[in-house]
Amino acid sequence: MNQLEGRSSTADLLEQAINGKRRAQGQLLTLIERGGFAADEVTELLHHYTQSRAHNSTLAGARCHAAVVGFTGAPGCGKSTLVGCLVAKITQEAGVGRSPAVLAVDPSSPLTGGAILGDRIRMEENVPAARSDGTDRTANAAVGGGAFIRSMATRGHAGGLALAVPAALRLFEACGYGPLIVETAGVGQVEVDVTRTADTTVVIVAPGMGDAVQANKSGLLEVADVLVVNKSDRPGAEDARRDLEHMLDLGHMTGLTGQWRPKVIMTTATEGTGADQVINAVQAHREHLEHAGQLEARREARIHQEVRDRVSQCLETAAEYHLGTKPDPLAAALKERITPAAAAAAISQHLLASDMPA
Amino acid sequence: MNQLEGRSSTADLLEQAINGKRRAQGQLLTLIERGGFAADEVTELLHHYTQSRAHNSTLAGARCHAAVVGFTGAPGCGKSTLVGCLVAKITQEAGVGRSPAVLAVDPSSPLTGGAILGDRIRMEENVPAARSDGTDRTANAAVGGGAFIRSMATRGHAGGLALAVPAALRLFEACGYGPLIVETAGVGQVEVDVTRTADTTVVIVAPGMGDAVQANKSGLLEVADVLVVNKSDRPGAEDARRDLEHMLDLGHMTGLTGQWRPKVIMTTATEGTGADQVINAVQAHREHLEHAGQLEARREARIHQEVRDRVSQCLETAAEYHLGTKPDPLAAALKERITPAAAAAAISQHLLASDMPA
Repeated sequence: MNQLEGRSSTADLLEQAINGKRRAQGQLLTLIERGGFAADEVTELLHHYTQSRAHNSTLAGARCHAAVVGFTGAPGCGKSTLVGCLVAKITQEAGVGRSPAVLAVDPSSPLTGGAILGDRIRMEENVPAARSDGTDRTANAAVGGGAFIRSMATRGHAGGLALAVPAALRLFEACGYGPLIVETAGVGQVEVDVTRTADTTVVIVAPGMGDAVQANKSGLLEVADVLVVNKSDRPGAEDARRDLEHMLDLGHMTGLTGQWRPKVIMTTATEGTGADQVINAVQAHREHLEHAGQLEARREARIHQEVRDRVSQCLETAAEYHLGTKPDPLAAALKERITPAAAAAAISQHLLASDMPA
Repeated sequence: MNQLEGRSSTADLLEQAINGKRRAQGQLLTLIERGGFAADEVTELLHHYTQSRAHNSTLAGARCHAAVVGFTGAPGCGKSTLVGCLVAKITQEAGVGRSPAVLAVDPSSPLTGGAILGDRIRMEENVPAARSDGTDRTANAAVGGGAFIRSMATRGHAGGLALAVPAALRLFEACGYGPLIVETAGVGQVEVDVTRTADTTVVIVAPGMGDAVQANKSGLLEVADVLVVNKSDRPGAEDARRDLEHMLDLGHMTGLTGQWRPKVIMTTATEGTGADQVINAVQAHREHLEHAGQLEARREARIHQEVRDRVSQCLETAAEYHLGTKPDPLAAALKERITPAAAAAAISQHLLASDMPA
């Protein structure tokens, strides 16, 4: 009985959210963030809604997906300020078009979170009419009612984040937002994977932090579609730009879209300088993807990644269960009679169907 | 034939490493870092060596394990300088005792690596006779031949790091080093797991970075056994100390060892101030663990974590194989006919033995 009530209330929430109620949108995001049964229910309901809308739509078969744009950069590069500035511009110019939604992924990593609260506050100052706290506003976001900004904290649940981000993006899309902006600190594999599967990935560096070289070493430049040198009024900005152009010349960046040479843009986000060029570059990259027929490939890469992450989660649950009920190989490893590798091989062999290579 | 040659040369390398040849130690660490078959061979050989040594030793059944001490903190907190300073002190005072080994885990994360090379150079300046480049030195490290410092880079292979760190620690131990110091930037789940399973975990914060509050929010303080406010000559150091003590008062830190109240120590690593107190606090914590009978629990937690990480790796390999040969549920998810969650459930059901809950 309680469960049925819960179900009907989630469906109600979704209906309200799709009709533009920000409070309901915020509540659904909280369910998604928490994970587990309630989150699965939201994604299941979202799927049915999207399916029936596609079926009813005269555009069935030619659905227009919202653009997903990832922004990443080391703590302190001014990422949040830049994103806030871009969102403000898009919102002001959107007119009756779509409004952007921002999912700011707080690092699942301890200690490097940076001024999370401060970032949010700064970003919202730049964005008129934005609310991230679930405040109820009856304006329909889909017809220019303002941007939606939401932080997603993960408190160390890296796996949870991998599942929550795509679900949140799907909710944003169903509610009519676009473009969908995912902002992550460039730390941790999960955050990078999230950014990597965006339609367009913007990598931000600041002068004098050695970021350009770092980003290259880490391989992140390989997936950058647009490069931004923020804080361009500071010493070293020109050096950073030259470093990046030099690495481009050397062919260090050969991602999915080999023919695309990432633009390097200088910005001073605190003054709004360069914001228009970033928006234009993102737009130009999207048009490039469309012409190259690669938009669909990027969308599929996102779903592929999500399926893999969910399979990993299922398998880990099974492994935990197995370790709880048949702990012999683990016990042998703990006593150092066998190596952890040998224990893991034995456990995997038990877990997997017999026609699988362990 | 080539494979046999390979095997015999790895066994030779191990014998040289155990006899104190730093070049061989460095080469084995490179094999471990690269992963795959060669790395597995090293750990297998190490296991046999350790087993036979335990068998031959008059101390069989009462093996003395080297202490594992984790140091973590945000980039810029002076972590490497502090570790270098501690290593220099331990090395100078060790006399004919054991020499410490340091495994500095470079973040697998892009963009926040900090001055990796600079860090290494700074650290080595502080440590007499230390070499991290595999330079051959005939002095046996086990009898005071100097510390061994090694960076382990991962270039995004988070899973590889999880497997390489415990193998490297086992090699260090077999070569007679102790204590074993693992230094990680507090970014990314894997790095945190590595630190979490140390015997003693030292969390370092710097004044004025909001680190104390961040560390608390992220849950890392819960696993801190020793807290260090480094750069204590800077403004805000006393505030940071007070924040940490306040959080201790509020009972925010209740880890494995509930009765242990972490000490808060002020250091200025660049001048060596406070280093002795850190060493004493780590020693005091180890004695506490011994008295509480928890040293063994921490060692088992490390092995447990390693078995889980290796099981995850086996399962992911099987999942990749399966996705390659039976891609139907994935294809349905890509066409949005079913949700990624439904596809993942179907794939897991195929993968797992029939008596496993998918």
